[in-house]
Amino acid sequence: MSGAVCLVQGASRGIGLGFCRALLARSPDTFVIATCRNPAAAPELRAVQDQNPDRVTVLPVDVMQTEQIQEAAEIVKEKHGRLDLLINSAGMLHPSGRGETSLKDVSAEGLEVTFKTNTIGPLLVAKHFAPLLVGGQGAFGEQAADSKNQHAAVLVNMSAKVGSITDNALGGWYSYRMSKAALNMATKNLSMELGRGRKKVICVSLHPGTVDTDLSRPYHKNVPNLFSVEDSVDSLMNVIDSLTVEDSGKFFTYDKTLMPF
Amino acid sequence: MSGAVCLVQGASRGIGLGFCRALLARSPDTFVIATCRNPAAAPELRAVQDQNPDRVTVLPVDVMQTEQIQEAAEIVKEKHGRLDLLINSAGMLHPSGRGETSLKDVSAEGLEVTFKTNTIGPLLVAKHFAPLLVGGQGAFGEQAADSKNQHAAVLVNMSAKVGSITDNALGGWYSYRMSKAALNMATKNLSMELGRGRKKVICVSLHPGTVDTDLSRPYHKNVPNLFSVEDSVDSLMNVIDSLTVEDSGKFFTYDKTLMPF
Repeated sequence: MSGAVCLVQGASRGIGLGFCRALLARSPDTFVIATCRNPAAAPELRAVQDQNPDRVTVLPVDVMQTEQIQEAAEIVKEKHGRLDLLINSAGMLHPSGRGETSLKDVSAEGLEVTFKTNTIGPLLVAKHFAPLLVGGQGAFGEQAADSKNQHAAVLVNMSAKVGSITDNALGGWYSYRMSKAALNMATKNLSMELGRGRKKVICVSLHPGTVDTDLSRPYHKNVPNLFSVEDSVDSLMNVIDSLTVEDSGKFFTYDKTLMPF
Repeated sequence: MSGAVCLVQGASRGIGLGFCRALLARSPDTFVIATCRNPAAAPELRAVQDQNPDRVTVLPVDVMQTEQIQEAAEIVKEKHGRLDLLINSAGMLHPSGRGETSLKDVSAEGLEVTFKTNTIGPLLVAKHFAPLLVGGQGAFGEQAADSKNQHAAVLVNMSAKVGSITDNALGGWYSYRMSKAALNMATKNLSMELGRGRKKVICVSLHPGTVDTDLSRPYHKNVPNLFSVEDSVDSLMNVIDSLTVEDSGKFFTYDKTLMPF
C-alpha cells in the first residue's frame, strides 16, 4: 500500500500551509497536493515543496475558476488515482479584511466575494474531487469494525465557531458567519451524498480555534487564548484521526467538542 | 394612530402576493408597499393595487440592484416615515427551477444566483429599511408588558424547513438549503443588531409549509399535505401576531413549532 494522498485547498499560508507541513511530517510516504490561487506568490509553500520535491505537488486553483478545479482533479487522478484526505482550508473574513461590525458595513459585493471564497469554492472542490475520495484507502479516521460503515476517505471543511447560528450571541461579521453556516449545510449534504455507497466518505466541518493567522490578525489583541498554527493543526489532526462514519455530517471544534449548527 | 405600514418584498406571486392580500383584508387602514423585480409583468399584483389604489404602493425592486432598494426605502420614508412589518418573501429553488439532486447538478452559477436571491437580497433589504423599522408602532406581534422588551416592528425572512442543517436528513437541493441556512444566520444577526435599542425589532425566520406556488410546482405530486397560499399565509399571520421580543432570532414553522438551525 502506497502512502496516503492528501489535498489541501488554500495551502499558501495559515492553517492550510500548517496542514501541508504536518501531513508531510506525519509519515515519510505521505503525498500532499497543495493548491492555492497563485503559487508564485506563496514563498512559504514553495519552500515546503523544495524541501519535499517528490512528495509535494503545488497546483494553481482559484476556486472561482471551475476549470482550474477540474484540471487539478484530472492531474491528481492521473498521478495518484485517489485521495485519502481533502481539506478545504481557504477562507476570508471579508474582502476588506474586517468583519462587518453592523449593517452599515454590509454590502452586496462583500457578501458575494465571501460566499464565493468560503462556501461555493469548497463545495465545487468537493464536487470535482469526490470521485477520487471514494477511491481512497481510509488512511485517515478510525476504521469501523462493521464492514458496512467502513470509509474510504475523509473530507474536512474548515468552518468556524462563529458559523454556528445556535451559538451566535454577539452578532456582526455578517458575511463570514453566513458563509460558514452555509458551508456547514454543504458538509451535511456531502456527508449524505458521499455516505451512501460501499466506499463512504466521512465529511466534517471543523473549527480550528482562533489561530495566529492573517485572517484573525486585526483581532488578536482581544483573544485571550490565541493558538499557534502548529498547535491548532496538531489538535485538528487528532480530531481527524479519531473520526468514524458516525461522525460524518457533524461540526466539531479542535478538541472534538460537538458544535450545534 | 394611522394604519399599519407593511412592506412585502417579492410580492408578484406566491406567498408574497398572498401576504399583500391578507394584510389588506386585515384592516381597512393598512398600507402595503409591494415590491417585485418587474411590476409590469405582475398582473395579479397590479390587480390588487387597482382594487386598493389608496392603500397599495407597488415599487420595482430587484434585490441585486442595491440602488433600487435604497430608492424604495427613500420613497417609503417620505410617504410613511416608518414600517411596522417587513416581509422578505422572494426566493428561488434554483435558477433551473429544480433543486440539485446530487453534486453533478451543482454549479457556481446556480449557487451564486440562489445566494443573491435568497440570502444577500433579503439582508440588503433589511439593511436599507432597518431605520424605518425602529420607527414602527408595534402593530404586529404581542407587545410585552415589560417596557424594556417592547418592540417597534417585526421583520420576517421567509425561510424553509430544508434550510435547517440539523433537520436535514435527505441531502440534495444544495443551493436552496445552503442559501436558507445562511438566511437563518442573517435573521439571528439582525435580531441582535436590531434588538439592542429601546425600539426593538422582532426578527424571525419562518417556514411556510410546502405551499402551492411556482417554486414547489415540480414537486407537488410528492407532497401529501400541500398548503394553499391562503392557508399558509393565514397560519403565518397567526404566528406573526403571536411574536414577542423573546421569539426574536428564532426559526418557526407555520404552526409556531420551533425549528433547530
